[in-house]
Amino acid sequence: MSRPARIAVIGAGQLARMTALAAASLDVEVGVLARRPTDPAVVAASHVRVGSPSSLTDVLRIAAWGDVVTLDHEQVDPMLLRAVERAGHAVHPRPAAKLLAQDKIEQRAVLGGRLGLPVPDHAVVESVAEVAACAEAWGWPVVLKDARGGYDGRGVAVVGDLGEAAGVLNRARARKGRVLAERRVAIERELSVILARSPSGQTAVYPVAETVQRDGVCREILAPAPIDPALAASARDLARGIAEAIDATGILAVELFVAGGELLINELALRPHNSGHFTLTGCVTSQFENHVRAVLDWPLGETALVAPAVACTNVLGESGLDPRRHLAAALAVPGASVQLYGKTPEPGRKLGHVTVAGRDLFDARDRSGRAARTLALGVAA
Amino acid sequence: MSRPARIAVIGAGQLARMTALAAASLDVEVGVLARRPTDPAVVAASHVRVGSPSSLTDVLRIAAWGDVVTLDHEQVDPMLLRAVERAGHAVHPRPAAKLLAQDKIEQRAVLGGRLGLPVPDHAVVESVAEVAACAEAWGWPVVLKDARGGYDGRGVAVVGDLGEAAGVLNRARARKGRVLAERRVAIERELSVILARSPSGQTAVYPVAETVQRDGVCREILAPAPIDPALAASARDLARGIAEAIDATGILAVELFVAGGELLINELALRPHNSGHFTLTGCVTSQFENHVRAVLDWPLGETALVAPAVACTNVLGESGLDPRRHLAAALAVPGASVQLYGKTPEPGRKLGHVTVAGRDLFDARDRSGRAARTLALGVAA
Repeated sequence: MSRPARIAVIGAGQLARMTALAAASLDVEVGVLARRPTDPAVVAASHVRVGSPSSLTDVLRIAAWGDVVTLDHEQVDPMLLRAVERAGHAVHPRPAAKLLAQDKIEQRAVLGGRLGLPVPDHAVVESVAEVAACAEAWGWPVVLKDARGGYDGRGVAVVGDLGEAAGVLNRARARKGRVLAERRVAIERELSVILARSPSGQTAVYPVAETVQRDGVCREILAPAPIDPALAASARDLARGIAEAIDATGILAVELFVAGGELLINELALRPHNSGHFTLTGCVTSQFENHVRAVLDWPLGETALVAPAVACTNVLGESGLDPRRHLAAALAVPGASVQLYGKTPEPGRKLGHVTVAGRDLFDARDRSGRAARTLALGVAA
Repeated sequence: MSRPARIAVIGAGQLARMTALAAASLDVEVGVLARRPTDPAVVAASHVRVGSPSSLTDVLRIAAWGDVVTLDHEQVDPMLLRAVERAGHAVHPRPAAKLLAQDKIEQRAVLGGRLGLPVPDHAVVESVAEVAACAEAWGWPVVLKDARGGYDGRGVAVVGDLGEAAGVLNRARARKGRVLAERRVAIERELSVILARSPSGQTAVYPVAETVQRDGVCREILAPAPIDPALAASARDLARGIAEAIDATGILAVELFVAGGELLINELALRPHNSGHFTLTGCVTSQFENHVRAVLDWPLGETALVAPAVACTNVLGESGLDPRRHLAAALAVPGASVQLYGKTPEPGRKLGHVTVAGRDLFDARDRSGRAARTLALGVAA
């Protein structure tokens, strides 16, 4: 008998965990390179290696186990991925595309500059004088972003004057990091387009979702986004165009702003993405199964919603309470599909999510919110 | 932090495997008592013990690990379950209900006799003369069933004369088994009702499905069964009544015949059931998740279909080909949701299934059949 196909994942967080569970249904094995034996994906993986995602030795070991290498977080150095590819392993996403998703300066240069796609006004800034020039052109406040390493609102500062700007620049200099200044956009909505793309070029685009953020962290995902169908079609076309232009493989998440009724590209992520969790029970094929299918270059699955409206609410460790204690109470909410990631509760940490497929967004959002609050707080406040 | 809830499963086949995958989403751990380290559920379980389901020592060891004990096959002795219960462990299904599901003579006596529910004409037979009396009353052929141990058409013989009957009785006598004679029913359709029931009495009934059998083995499951809504409502009521009467806990599958437009009870199973596999991607909550929720006495999930029609086709090891080799081809069928169980292909062995949710049964059945044939035969013949 042939052995199962094997996917090696650098990282072992909840994205790897849900990828491993989806893979198991197809009898595909997932091996993870975990930092710690308690990482969320360890219990779901067929093969575990404990090591560092920045150690080429560790990464090559997990790569040697798998048929293809992928990753579950942003912090993998594209140079290291390139070395893995040079050693003869298939890597999806490809290192060049990964670099683009990871480095905001590179990303703006390629998407806005080379491809002429809509991005916020921006400039690379190295000095307070350069920030002052930006502020003169765009007005205060100015958004300063670390070129690399930010997520969940970290690495993004909204500065109101040159003193604050100096602080951000000094901290970046101390880390040897570069800084991107962006015009602050009057955001009407934030959207996310999840798509899967295979090495042979098949693309499957999910319905556009609206993401609701608080303190830079995504709290809710609503699909389909309650926007003009023409705008949704543009968002999907934009995401598809980006995927082809950068040769994305696996899942690509394109986060967009709507400002003045127009789309602006905010960020890219080349992996299953938090804003795609609504697909897990809300779509015919989840982003996790399609990531598996894409990196193995197998035909992609259907992306349609299973109901008129799907809402997904993140469960954050705000209170330090363990959501496991409130699982039974949360499951009493009709239609609540709960995912818990097996993580120790800490303030701000994503511990799970709840998806509800419903008749309309109002209904689905109400129920997913109630169940998520019950998990996070112990009461459906 | 509290530890995850733990479910101990006696057995480690595909039912335990899919239960473990469903449990993982809720951060619930499943431990299995496996016969062999290669059993399908081993890779999906959090905890594995290799041993025998008929060894009280082995069963008590896995029971001690878990918060509750359940099972994934028919071959567990209810006396052994009783001993586990006496040792202080919660066991679902309860031993008395389990005995009823397992022993066809006991089952007919209680359901047909004590509860007055519709069952085929039947009699316990110990001699050829008693079979002759049955044949005189009902006509030939007569159905002879082993009281225990049958599944997938095994343990059921349709005998056309006394010579054949003598053979069946002799073989049963050699095994010290009892035999039930049943009037052969002119079956118009076979139906299955899956329901979940929790120890505190909450019940969630799935839509009635039609099962299509060949050689005593279920090949296809079609939901909702294309029958009169009044008949479907009767089938659900019947199943609910049985669950309450026998104090079923966990998943109960009630297999029914339709004969002369009326329902007759064929068999019961007290565990996630092959005829319930359509629920895995075809319903809001799968039978596996609801089994987990039921045995932990947590609120049960919604049982509605996610589409107007859901068809599920089993993948049998007819050809000896490994379905993994044809996975990519099968996934090219639109909407095909594939489950492979990680088993070595052998003729007649259930290796996986394909579920398709569609606009109507014709469409869903066509697609699930094509994908399943591709997996089993390598061609969508």
